[in-house]
Amino acid sequence: MYIDKADKAELSRREAELAAEYEGFKSQKLNLDLTRGKPSSRQLDLSNGMDGILGGGYAAADGTDTRNYGVLEGIHELRKLGGDILGVKPEIVLAAGNSSLELMHRCVHFAYLFGAHEGATPWKDEGRIKFICPVPGYDRHFAITQELGIEMINVAMRDDGPDMDAIEALLRQDPAIRGLWVVPKYSNPTGVVFSDAVVERMAALGRIAAKNFRLFWDNAYAVHDLHDNPPVLANIMDYCERLGTLDSVLQFTSTSKISFAGAGVAFLAASPGNLAKFKKHLGIATIGPDKVNQLRHARMFPDLRALKDRMRLHAEMLRPKFAAVLRSLKENFKDSDLGSWQVPQGGYFVSFDARPGVASEIVRLAAAVGVKLTPAGATFPYGRDPEDRNIRLAPSLPVLAEVEQTMAVFVTCVKLASVRKKLQDLNP
Amino acid sequence: MYIDKADKAELSRREAELAAEYEGFKSQKLNLDLTRGKPSSRQLDLSNGMDGILGGGYAAADGTDTRNYGVLEGIHELRKLGGDILGVKPEIVLAAGNSSLELMHRCVHFAYLFGAHEGATPWKDEGRIKFICPVPGYDRHFAITQELGIEMINVAMRDDGPDMDAIEALLRQDPAIRGLWVVPKYSNPTGVVFSDAVVERMAALGRIAAKNFRLFWDNAYAVHDLHDNPPVLANIMDYCERLGTLDSVLQFTSTSKISFAGAGVAFLAASPGNLAKFKKHLGIATIGPDKVNQLRHARMFPDLRALKDRMRLHAEMLRPKFAAVLRSLKENFKDSDLGSWQVPQGGYFVSFDARPGVASEIVRLAAAVGVKLTPAGATFPYGRDPEDRNIRLAPSLPVLAEVEQTMAVFVTCVKLASVRKKLQDLNP
Repeated sequence: MYIDKADKAELSRREAELAAEYEGFKSQKLNLDLTRGKPSSRQLDLSNGMDGILGGGYAAADGTDTRNYGVLEGIHELRKLGGDILGVKPEIVLAAGNSSLELMHRCVHFAYLFGAHEGATPWKDEGRIKFICPVPGYDRHFAITQELGIEMINVAMRDDGPDMDAIEALLRQDPAIRGLWVVPKYSNPTGVVFSDAVVERMAALGRIAAKNFRLFWDNAYAVHDLHDNPPVLANIMDYCERLGTLDSVLQFTSTSKISFAGAGVAFLAASPGNLAKFKKHLGIATIGPDKVNQLRHARMFPDLRALKDRMRLHAEMLRPKFAAVLRSLKENFKDSDLGSWQVPQGGYFVSFDARPGVASEIVRLAAAVGVKLTPAGATFPYGRDPEDRNIRLAPSLPVLAEVEQTMAVFVTCVKLASVRKKLQDLNP
Repeated sequence: MYIDKADKAELSRREAELAAEYEGFKSQKLNLDLTRGKPSSRQLDLSNGMDGILGGGYAAADGTDTRNYGVLEGIHELRKLGGDILGVKPEIVLAAGNSSLELMHRCVHFAYLFGAHEGATPWKDEGRIKFICPVPGYDRHFAITQELGIEMINVAMRDDGPDMDAIEALLRQDPAIRGLWVVPKYSNPTGVVFSDAVVERMAALGRIAAKNFRLFWDNAYAVHDLHDNPPVLANIMDYCERLGTLDSVLQFTSTSKISFAGAGVAFLAASPGNLAKFKKHLGIATIGPDKVNQLRHARMFPDLRALKDRMRLHAEMLRPKFAAVLRSLKENFKDSDLGSWQVPQGGYFVSFDARPGVASEIVRLAAAVGVKLTPAGATFPYGRDPEDRNIRLAPSLPVLAEVEQTMAVFVTCVKLASVRKKLQDLNP
């Protein structure tokens, strides 16, 4: 269906059909939720062996009693696991609690209050500062910077990563830029994997940017491939080493979508200087992370191979759900002017761009028949999608039949909202 | 020994004897540590059943899947347990991660950045602000406020709690005071339990203080009694309810010294307004706490009775160590002018006040023969004990024989440093 080619009579006819279809959903009393990138309970079952995995032994490999206080940087075997996931040495990795978001939040807050590096002016004392935000992006990133009143500047995401020309130009023109949020592999929500060229240019930003600029490299989906022979993300820290820009990057990941979403282990990888500065402030906030849970993870994932085996099982469970979403989008919108989307090779999302001005209405329509979607605008700073068109679909949590039901509702809502908007535009 | 009564000749003779005794320790090549309030491995063994305690079941009582994301305030059964420890309703309790220090740190930081209550000016925008710090106190409290440049004012600890006259006078005179750090039961390090009168006056501070003043009520040792029929701490929140000052108090505790020091569950109890404000900002930092670990705790401690049974086992292990410290102090210093101490009925510390000006030297002497003591001054803001006399002894971690060895060194160092100081004073 190409509604830009349809005349008013046809649009009205379609509107009536779609409205009837939509009314039909009401009687189904649906209660579906495609809002968040949560693992399903079947995925979580894969790690049920966590309980009892220690066999009563609580000593780390170096003899550390994981039950007691201390070891701010985490136990060595987990730092190694985090390093293996990210392709860096364990020495530059800190293994923490259950939330990589918390690590990012801390890094932003510490830079804001105490400076990004030893001797740096705290961001809070630098007047109006700014972060660059490729869009659509991750709402929880934006919330951290918004809460501190840090101005966020949108930059477009492309098929190979953010618009690097725009980012480099911004950094050259605007001395107030202090950060950049990215999810470099299976980007949230577009699923884009940054190309080697983009990664290299990202690593080089430290040469253009202020010394207290930080690239927040949220590598949340580092091993979260849906298929064999997945795309490979270039190692930004290798580039940084060569370019002398290691201080400009803070890298994050976690096992939240590997083991338990709420009870995994989060990691920070950073230059020795950044890590020392982080630990200095972290050591004021806490005596140390939950090392017992770290040890459980070390037992369950003795090496990267074991972890990747687990990821293949996750992929088997996720693939049919992603396939259902993509099939539905293709069947309904391939030959249409109603929307576009990317086909992700991993991660947790499918990003759908509707026609401008209808995303909020799609979400509203779906909610009214019991289908919760991520609020329109959530993928943009300040919750404002300037074109009101992006919707993030997160198919991981529901069972397959529910994903299919949800998509049936979704595509009807997309069509109905689009046709109504077009009719409105024709009858202003 | 009363060195103020001894003449120079006697002091010189004693100095020679003590120096010889001290030299004797050198050959023993000791490696002892009485620095931190850590549980011993035997105490930690009491909770080894944590591993496997879930029997593969990860659902909370209300059906919540603890493995997944969410539930910012923690699972209900743990909020109830925290509430029972503190004598408050579960509705005003938040169950968090493994560190109550982290909760305090967050409360200070959130008030500093975003205001202590909805609509309050952030502390950072109020110019020079101050905290009252009863001394000796807990070094990690002081570190949080010091890091933010918050001025700390010393107030004396007495046998029944801090000097309330001084605190009330300060609050009346100085509008810049925004906080007060206390450990109300088995105070760190003195072991003092606040009297009912002190607790009531603490609860009434909210009537004198600024609306955005907060009392940090670190009830770390709420159930950490050494003996049966322990002293009872009055319930500050009951007083607050009556006085209408509930917003002025933030109460903290944790299971760190009940289950695992590094893998327990921390709690914040606060007024509905304070809790809502805290959750608003916490929700930007994290998606939720480790609920699986909370569930383990719910299984291990189904009610307060089970938890108190566990505390009796801890007490059995701790009593001989405290007895050894107190016996040594009594035997050596009862009839002397060399120092004074309090006899704690619980908690993790014995606080010793040497003669003015010798604490640093005692710690230095002990370190030089392989006995680590908490750095002199650590129990004061900025690490500065104005009289250089307080030393915190933490006998929980070493085995009994080591505690006894340590005390043998300690008392010798106290005597030697005191005699030498006196000789110096006589020969300036």
